[in-house]
Amino acid sequence: MKGEVKLGILGGGQLGRMLIQAGLDFNIYTLVLDPDENAPCKDVCNEFFVGSFRDFDTVYEFGKNCDILTIEIEHVNADALEKLEQEGVKVYPDAKTVRTIQDKGLQKEFYKQHAIPTADFRILKDVEELKANTEFLPAFQKLRREGYDGRGVTRLQSEADLGKGFTEPSVLEKLVDFEKEISVIVARNASGQVTAFPVVELSFHPEHNLVDSLFAPANVPYKLQRLAIEIATRVIESFNMVGILAVEMFLTKDGQILVNEVAPRPHNSGHHTIKANYTSQYEQHLRAILDLPLGSTDIQSAAVMLNLLGEPGYDGEAKYEGLQEALAVPGVYIHLYGKKYTRAARKMGHITVLGADLQEAQQRAESIKNVIKVIA
Amino acid sequence: MKGEVKLGILGGGQLGRMLIQAGLDFNIYTLVLDPDENAPCKDVCNEFFVGSFRDFDTVYEFGKNCDILTIEIEHVNADALEKLEQEGVKVYPDAKTVRTIQDKGLQKEFYKQHAIPTADFRILKDVEELKANTEFLPAFQKLRREGYDGRGVTRLQSEADLGKGFTEPSVLEKLVDFEKEISVIVARNASGQVTAFPVVELSFHPEHNLVDSLFAPANVPYKLQRLAIEIATRVIESFNMVGILAVEMFLTKDGQILVNEVAPRPHNSGHHTIKANYTSQYEQHLRAILDLPLGSTDIQSAAVMLNLLGEPGYDGEAKYEGLQEALAVPGVYIHLYGKKYTRAARKMGHITVLGADLQEAQQRAESIKNVIKVIA
Repeated sequence: MKGEVKLGILGGGQLGRMLIQAGLDFNIYTLVLDPDENAPCKDVCNEFFVGSFRDFDTVYEFGKNCDILTIEIEHVNADALEKLEQEGVKVYPDAKTVRTIQDKGLQKEFYKQHAIPTADFRILKDVEELKANTEFLPAFQKLRREGYDGRGVTRLQSEADLGKGFTEPSVLEKLVDFEKEISVIVARNASGQVTAFPVVELSFHPEHNLVDSLFAPANVPYKLQRLAIEIATRVIESFNMVGILAVEMFLTKDGQILVNEVAPRPHNSGHHTIKANYTSQYEQHLRAILDLPLGSTDIQSAAVMLNLLGEPGYDGEAKYEGLQEALAVPGVYIHLYGKKYTRAARKMGHITVLGADLQEAQQRAESIKNVIKVIA
Repeated sequence: MKGEVKLGILGGGQLGRMLIQAGLDFNIYTLVLDPDENAPCKDVCNEFFVGSFRDFDTVYEFGKNCDILTIEIEHVNADALEKLEQEGVKVYPDAKTVRTIQDKGLQKEFYKQHAIPTADFRILKDVEELKANTEFLPAFQKLRREGYDGRGVTRLQSEADLGKGFTEPSVLEKLVDFEKEISVIVARNASGQVTAFPVVELSFHPEHNLVDSLFAPANVPYKLQRLAIEIATRVIESFNMVGILAVEMFLTKDGQILVNEVAPRPHNSGHHTIKANYTSQYEQHLRAILDLPLGSTDIQSAAVMLNLLGEPGYDGEAKYEGLQEALAVPGVYIHLYGKKYTRAARKMGHITVLGADLQEAQQRAESIKNVIKVIA
């Protein structure tokens, strides 16, 4: 390995920040592009560029100085990625994968083509097509593009809900009667080696539709865990992509596993791996894109991960309450994202709670839930 | 906690770098002072100052802008620390502790005063006093000040060796017939809470007199591990210091434990804690100086830590050989320090090898020893 690889990252949020933090161990020189001049990556990368990762010229100009280009958000200009690939920059994940994933319609078609189990769906051009598919309800309607963290998703129970529907191109996805939501993060390096992290189990915040907490190992029969890992592996191999891919899945009440959606980058459902697993998702992504052998994904400790969201009703310079009390509990670790300003439900950090077994981790997590508050 | 604490670090080497890396999770704003404009901290801290941490004015001017001032090397200007303390800066470790530890003569006297077991010694002013103590040989002669990583230490077997002796003020330390060298890292926060990491066992490079590798848990009877932790705890409580303290000890063939020397900062013998323990030594130091509750020091995995030294015969821009082969072994993690130039025996990084038990970690470590080479 050269003393220094120039790694460009599109997006300067917390995922990029934790990637750079892990990258310090590999002597990586990092360049970051983000429109927000106060993005969490700003003070931790080597060079920070203010600009839009959605703009062709901006991404192209940024990327052509990099040895490797990666992303921490998928809503980037895929045409620029393609041109950079053609000019010899290593773009991981590649333009084709990013283009497929950033359009939920293409993503669903891709699963169908590759025999990857997923909820039944309809592709809708406009509101007329929505009206023509009322027999398909109840369903989730998802915008084809730009959906993120619960934005661009609406639940349509029956014909009476049609007024809440989106008028833009969308996917109508059959409501799945699921028992659990789970996630498997897989990684593939340029040499084709693939690894999977153990299954994690997610729980969602009822209001914000954000991941509220998760735990690992999942409380799921071994056979279904094996199946989830097989499916996630099939997805990354079908994309033929390099890097990590978070595969969110439904475990249905009748024991099926259906792929919900995927993210070709570090993911909220892998934050706990920093503390709980041999290799973190961030190091695994770096190993993959540097074409190093992938690390062991073994669990060192059971873990619960809690997102630390801005307390509703506070808007302004962030302050943290309850750290003393929470950190006094053994196994509790805080990860703040360096965001100066908080607002309701903004992701300000996360807390990982470790335990010798899941029960211990969950008891500890329960005791500190709602103890740490981000106010202004 | 405030959104941002301004933490000053005297010294910009790898220990500071890993401290800053851990500090990202706490939203700490870091300032670093080091004479080398290419120091490993340079690109990772918020503000970097080129200057001598041995100079009164430089340290004072640097420190007065900080909320908290800490060190990653003990050879700093203690008078400036004292003045900063008087002016309300939180200096951890405090000036008095640093002054005692940076002088091996005062350090040994301190152990004697506080009934801390240590090898018998003589304080020598000059070469005349050395000659007057030949009956004390065999012994190690150590310079009172500025010894570091094996510099300033010489072994005097008998009167015939006197010519090799130092002429400056020194400590003559009775040769200890030890079976093992061990280390315990203890931490104390401003509220007085104390924790200890499990005992690690050290092995030294025969030529360079640097720590070559270490492993944890130590292969030492439980009773002696308890004793080592008791002694280390007594040392930090005697200093009444805040921060972490590495206590290196000899385990003698007749079952005694003697304190060899201490370092009031993150230490080479705690690098493995980043990967192997619930809390790393770096996070523990931060928790201590921020007066947060100290973290659990429990072991998650057994570990072997290997220092990655510059290969003899190479001087220049560093290149890394053997990464592919080494990282293919499960449980192997590399930590490079971001040093552009290598030279013989320069500390360029370290490797942590994890295993489900010590035997597994040691077998893996054996298989990759000498595989990674730092050349130019």
